[in-house]
Amino acid sequence: MTSTWLSEINWSDDGLVPVIAQEAESGTVLMVAWMNRDALKLTVEKGEAVYWSRSRKKLWHKGEESGHTQKIKDIRLDCDGDVVLLSVEQNGGIACHTGRHHCFFRKLENKQWVITSPILKNPDTIYKK
Amino acid sequence: MTSTWLSEINWSDDGLVPVIAQEAESGTVLMVAWMNRDALKLTVEKGEAVYWSRSRKKLWHKGEESGHTQKIKDIRLDCDGDVVLLSVEQNGGIACHTGRHHCFFRKLENKQWVITSPILKNPDTIYKK
Repeated sequence: MTSTWLSEINWSDDGLVPVIAQEAESGTVLMVAWMNRDALKLTVEKGEAVYWSRSRKKLWHKGEESGHTQKIKDIRLDCDGDVVLLSVEQNGGIACHTGRHHCFFRKLENKQWVITSPILKNPDTIYKK
Repeated sequence: MTSTWLSEINWSDDGLVPVIAQEAESGTVLMVAWMNRDALKLTVEKGEAVYWSRSRKKLWHKGEESGHTQKIKDIRLDCDGDVVLLSVEQNGGIACHTGRHHCFFRKLENKQWVITSPILKNPDTIYKK
């Protein structure tokens, strides 16, 4: 079976594409991660976000350990075909590994990055030892 | 003068960081582009988005030709310090070079990318010859 839709993506030299996860209900930009072809294919098949972990060099079914899965509402591609945008339902309301709702919790104020979002859950209790 | 806040960003080996521009009022993710240190510094100074064009290898004051400038509302950094999120007011309501409101106008439906957003202005009339 061909996967033309996958070939329409401008994969990087490493075979990856950056992916933005946006919360469907609130519009909040939750996080940015990466996918390879397998990750995006699995994301569509499962209906949940599966990324490629560049640090661990393996597929990463987001939430498989923490329970903070992302249910896919829709998948979009930009004009250049080199960025993917997911609209998701964030299970547990926590997308960030720091235990926050989203990853963009530092805001520039007077040339300083100020933390603006609370930790909702201690990361030590999110991840198994 | 030091610029500690600029040094807190995890710049790529090429000295760049990916930047998401999100429309402040609607929450729409408009586009993704890149900045280097100079671009981000200028963005803060001007209060308008200045990117680094990877294809033209030069600073790109978004809208300098088209008039579709992006007024900065706030600037955020993610947990890993390697993605910047701008909240902007999009002048003219057009962020995409195709003449659309935003760049993510292709939506995956039954394993096909379907165009979901109209062209608001003919690109030929946006850019000078």
